[in-house]
Amino acid sequence: MIVVLKRNSDKEHVEKLMQHFTDMGLRINYSQGADTLILGLMGDTTRLDEGDIMAYDVVERVQRVTEPFKAVNRKFHPEDTIIEVAGRKIGAGYFNVMAGPCSVENEAQIVECAERVKAAGASFLRGGAFKPRTSPYSFQGLEAEGLKLLLEAKRQTGLPIVTEIMSEKHLDLFADVDIIQLGARNMQNFMLLKELGRSNKPILLKRGLSATMEEFLMAAEYIFAGGNTNVILCERGIRTFEKLIRNNLDISAVPLVKMFSHLPIIIDPSHAAGRRDMVQPLSRAAIAAGADGLIIEAHNDPAHALCDGAQSLDLNQFDTVMKDIKRRAEFEGRVMMP
Amino acid sequence: MIVVLKRNSDKEHVEKLMQHFTDMGLRINYSQGADTLILGLMGDTTRLDEGDIMAYDVVERVQRVTEPFKAVNRKFHPEDTIIEVAGRKIGAGYFNVMAGPCSVENEAQIVECAERVKAAGASFLRGGAFKPRTSPYSFQGLEAEGLKLLLEAKRQTGLPIVTEIMSEKHLDLFADVDIIQLGARNMQNFMLLKELGRSNKPILLKRGLSATMEEFLMAAEYIFAGGNTNVILCERGIRTFEKLIRNNLDISAVPLVKMFSHLPIIIDPSHAAGRRDMVQPLSRAAIAAGADGLIIEAHNDPAHALCDGAQSLDLNQFDTVMKDIKRRAEFEGRVMMP
Amino acid sequence: MIVVLKRNSDKEHVEKLMQHFTDMGLRINYSQGADTLILGLMGDTTRLDEGDIMAYDVVERVQRVTEPFKAVNRKFHPEDTIIEVAGRKIGAGYFNVMAGPCSVENEAQIVECAERVKAAGASFLRGGAFKPRTSPYSFQGLEAEGLKLLLEAKRQTGLPIVTEIMSEKHLDLFADVDIIQLGARNMQNFMLLKELGRSNKPILLKRGLSATMEEFLMAAEYIFAGGNTNVILCERGIRTFEKLIRNNLDISAVPLVKMFSHLPIIIDPSHAAGRRDMVQPLSRAAIAAGADGLIIEAHNDPAHALCDGAQSLDLNQFDTVMKDIKRRAEFEGRVMMP
Amino acid sequence: MIVVLKRNSDKEHVEKLMQHFTDMGLRINYSQGADTLILGLMGDTTRLDEGDIMAYDVVERVQRVTEPFKAVNRKFHPEDTIIEVAGRKIGAGYFNVMAGPCSVENEAQIVECAERVKAAGASFLRGGAFKPRTSPYSFQGLEAEGLKLLLEAKRQTGLPIVTEIMSEKHLDLFADVDIIQLGARNMQNFMLLKELGRSNKPILLKRGLSATMEEFLMAAEYIFAGGNTNVILCERGIRTFEKLIRNNLDISAVPLVKMFSHLPIIIDPSHAAGRRDMVQPLSRAAIAAGADGLIIEAHNDPAHALCDGAQSLDLNQFDTVMKDIKRRAEFEGRVMMP
Repeated sequence: MIVVLKRNSDKEHVEKLMQHFTDMGLRINYSQGADTLILGLMGDTTRLDEGDIMAYDVVERVQRVTEPFKAVNRKFHPEDTIIEVAGRKIGAGYFNVMAGPCSVENEAQIVECAERVKAAGASFLRGGAFKPRTSPYSFQGLEAEGLKLLLEAKRQTGLPIVTEIMSEKHLDLFADVDIIQLGARNMQNFMLLKELGRSNKPILLKRGLSATMEEFLMAAEYIFAGGNTNVILCERGIRTFEKLIRNNLDISAVPLVKMFSHLPIIIDPSHAAGRRDMVQPLSRAAIAAGADGLIIEAHNDPAHALCDGAQSLDLNQFDTVMKDIKRRAEFEGRVMMP
Repeated sequence: MIVVLKRNSDKEHVEKLMQHFTDMGLRINYSQGADTLILGLMGDTTRLDEGDIMAYDVVERVQRVTEPFKAVNRKFHPEDTIIEVAGRKIGAGYFNVMAGPCSVENEAQIVECAERVKAAGASFLRGGAFKPRTSPYSFQGLEAEGLKLLLEAKRQTGLPIVTEIMSEKHLDLFADVDIIQLGARNMQNFMLLKELGRSNKPILLKRGLSATMEEFLMAAEYIFAGGNTNVILCERGIRTFEKLIRNNLDISAVPLVKMFSHLPIIIDPSHAAGRRDMVQPLSRAAIAAGADGLIIEAHNDPAHALCDGAQSLDLNQFDTVMKDIKRRAEFEGRVMMP
Repeated sequence: MIVVLKRNSDKEHVEKLMQHFTDMGLRINYSQGADTLILGLMGDTTRLDEGDIMAYDVVERVQRVTEPFKAVNRKFHPEDTIIEVAGRKIGAGYFNVMAGPCSVENEAQIVECAERVKAAGASFLRGGAFKPRTSPYSFQGLEAEGLKLLLEAKRQTGLPIVTEIMSEKHLDLFADVDIIQLGARNMQNFMLLKELGRSNKPILLKRGLSATMEEFLMAAEYIFAGGNTNVILCERGIRTFEKLIRNNLDISAVPLVKMFSHLPIIIDPSHAAGRRDMVQPLSRAAIAAGADGLIIEAHNDPAHALCDGAQSLDLNQFDTVMKDIKRRAEFEGRVMMP
Repeated sequence: MIVVLKRNSDKEHVEKLMQHFTDMGLRINYSQGADTLILGLMGDTTRLDEGDIMAYDVVERVQRVTEPFKAVNRKFHPEDTIIEVAGRKIGAGYFNVMAGPCSVENEAQIVECAERVKAAGASFLRGGAFKPRTSPYSFQGLEAEGLKLLLEAKRQTGLPIVTEIMSEKHLDLFADVDIIQLGARNMQNFMLLKELGRSNKPILLKRGLSATMEEFLMAAEYIFAGGNTNVILCERGIRTFEKLIRNNLDISAVPLVKMFSHLPIIIDPSHAAGRRDMVQPLSRAAIAAGADGLIIEAHNDPAHALCDGAQSLDLNQFDTVMKDIKRRAEFEGRVMMP
């Protein structure tokens, strides 16, 4: 951490500030220029907050030199992390496709989707039981009943399931879920992050719509801080000014996660654009950029889906897209999980 | 809702879509142009979701004509709403200043802050017990103990309190809190919104960092949908590309809320910039634009605050700012709540 | 400028880099921590470019400590600059309202607008002769003929004029224009900035839609670098995610310009929202925040304006708004220019 | 174009508005709902401006149904456009790599770069003679001398050249340049767009930092409107909130251009991130998403480049990246131009 002091700062106040840092166990490098005094803080600066230091009147600027995240930082864990779930490996070259409908609607629907996406080559079944909706008047999901139907689909097909949690109160309901998804709007729901940190479940952490990579990795750090190291990151489109699509895939998230963290990252090309004709080109970009997997919406009847139909592939379209995905994963030397 | 169909759409599919709308109790106006067919949907369209309609292959575009929010919409409730809390009125010309430290730290601190902001003219004491922090390694607040200290400060000074809730599980702890704040990062924590909707507490709903006005008002609609109509909106800065400030006050939020909703809106000039030298000019702009109040961070010793010191005024600075605020509220013809 | 080096950097490469800085006449403060080496560069760092330094493989991060702008920086020119044009003062408490139609359309129209805005209290006539339009099929302005009509309106009313330049080739046409406006889309048209820097005309420099304050002030620095110090800054709304308005007034620009620069700043509440019902509340906020003036669209017949009618006040509405503006400028202790 | 009228609008005013549209040669579909009246305008609506229509007091909302661009619209030109320059084809499966230094610095440098990028497989030499720089104190390019050196490099190597124009006044200087680049900051420099529209040179049009796809395509439409149909689009990163990279590649631009336009689109992975370690992963994503080419910064000595060194590959790194690009272009079935 670098602290730039204001010109002509009162000596006594500067000493007070330096004492504060020393008290925190930090070492200080002191640089006196013609009109600028700079303090370089060495040691564990992750506990420091820029805003707190700025509160000292003598401080003009504060700049982090090292990342504020530790446990998820590649610097301290150079090897790729592999998450193992239900016999599938995720990360480090192991490539997974998670697919299924936006919402679970009934047994026939979810089982048909599960069978078809499995046959096409997906390794996980996704489906929403609890649905975050912008409007209180929209369909909110089948909730607990939806979880039961997902588990039934798992029983019938053997596909492990990934589904979203929306409340700390529901954790018990997710006991048999294979991967718990934390949605984009809850990326900084810190209480839920802490609760998930205390569980041992694999977590699919979706990036917030306007979150920076640092904030995204700090959310993962929250889960690690609670003791749970099974975190899969998911980029699902950020908010930009573009009007032709609902969100906008941040493809740079893939190489940036690979540089700064050891965690696997998968891409959601369905939410990333909000239109099904973008799923294939964005999936291709994601694989080429180095993503560890994809999570794709596929529905037996998108026009009658109870939500997000615009971005869902029908099951035949999904078959076609999967063939293309497999060919590309092979080209990249990834191992497709069955 | 307007639905633009693709050129040369299959007749049968169009009829299927029209049947779907008729089944939902909507009336359809049908416009056939040279190469475009447009459906105008009349009736209660708040249950419709653009994405769901886009799922029909014959649909090219969907455009809302009326706002998706009803209960908070000024069209259906033309008079300004006044929220009454602890003898104070908020909205419709009644102006409130809520002030206090970012975090409750100990009894002496919170009581001193309460006494001083009350003396200066604040009508509510603010203070954080549960603190949303980007890093798990930062101070997370005194939690339940912090709430007790706030209530003690209220007992000693008579100032009603406003403080942030971060979990559905904590609602009981907030039984004696006067206004429950829902933070920006939880603006779309739909489960918590629903829970607060079922309570009868006044809610201070902070706008998310990248939320549109429609999303902001839809979050308020969630609380209304549960039966709780005591909602105070709070604009606290949005994320822009500006680097000199942490967030950026969206001053347009004030007149837009006044046009589209009947709810009161207050401004948080402390978080809106993240630097204390911006609090006064932004407060002035907020009052002039028509805000119903301000929520300001004031701390007895900002340099040693346990969080967000950079944006906190010290108590003498707060005195000065309050004198200016009073003079301006009077100029605008507002009634300052004591 | 602070340069953070990578861990375990090759000594020889570090020395090469340090030699490079020394060759540029900079002094270096050298801080060696446990695992980080930091160089603090002292001297005139405005010629340094972060990207160039990052090119050295040993460099991990570069951070400016001082602003890259000098001539427009308040640090080196603490007093407010006052621009004098046609007998009007702008800045340092002297408040100006510039008003008129989006486009000059014909003599009767521009003269009527000029007479009426003058009578209402405007000190400058604004009007577009060259119009930047998103579409090549939209009305592009009367061009040279429009400039003649503006000058005719000036002759008849005595109001000095402000109008936009779009090409270096047109500078001669602007010889009798009082203030030359550089539009938002040309804020980083560096050739035009240089050309205007070589003239001695007062320049109204509009901020780009997504420009940071630093970029905005650097554009002003370009004009200063050419020798022209008559620059008036203008904030006219930035691009945000909000859909209810076309642009979004960045009210923070006013206090930030006042802190970091000595130049006057005026606000354009018409473009800042793109809807006329926002002009009055935004004007109020601008005055309260400390703006040095306003530039407002007023048209004799907005519904038949050849562009931007949605944001134009009609002349009666302008009268009403001006009365409110005068009362507020007086409250703030500003001197209204007639 | 759809025009939604306000409730209870005055009949006479509505008729006036309808007359206005009829006078413009448009046909009107009229839909009367319970409380909403909607006008559907049919015919050539590209000359209509939303703001102008909004100026009518009876209008509540305006929504385009068809794109405002015609000449560049795929609807009216379904086949991919192929641009032919100096014996190279661009678009429709023909893949080009343009490479070279940020700035031309001297003959030895530019010739070495040209020879090496040609040997590696680039089909065009890029290099800046006129440089848009944020600071007036940064190196501004060798200007006319730089153009001469580029032409000399072309003479010695046979590589056609692409370089940026910054002023209408310079067009004559670019007579022998093969492709004229229009930079991101000038994307809406409408006078320069018109001037380039009157020339017959191939134009590489770079997308503005915050431009929407519609604005980007409208800029191309300006060039077409002048008669020049040789336009190559270039996505070079947009501004987002991410701090780890300077700009952020909008990968969706590739499939969106392919859907909405017939023009070729190439990607600039160097500017898109501003760091050289991102060039390879972003190039891979671009090829997979369907881009028609890449423009890459490669310099013989990035650490001593006079600008943008941080994002330049050295010539050996470029060799490596090119091998990877060729393998991937082949996998996609593209034809690499030599």
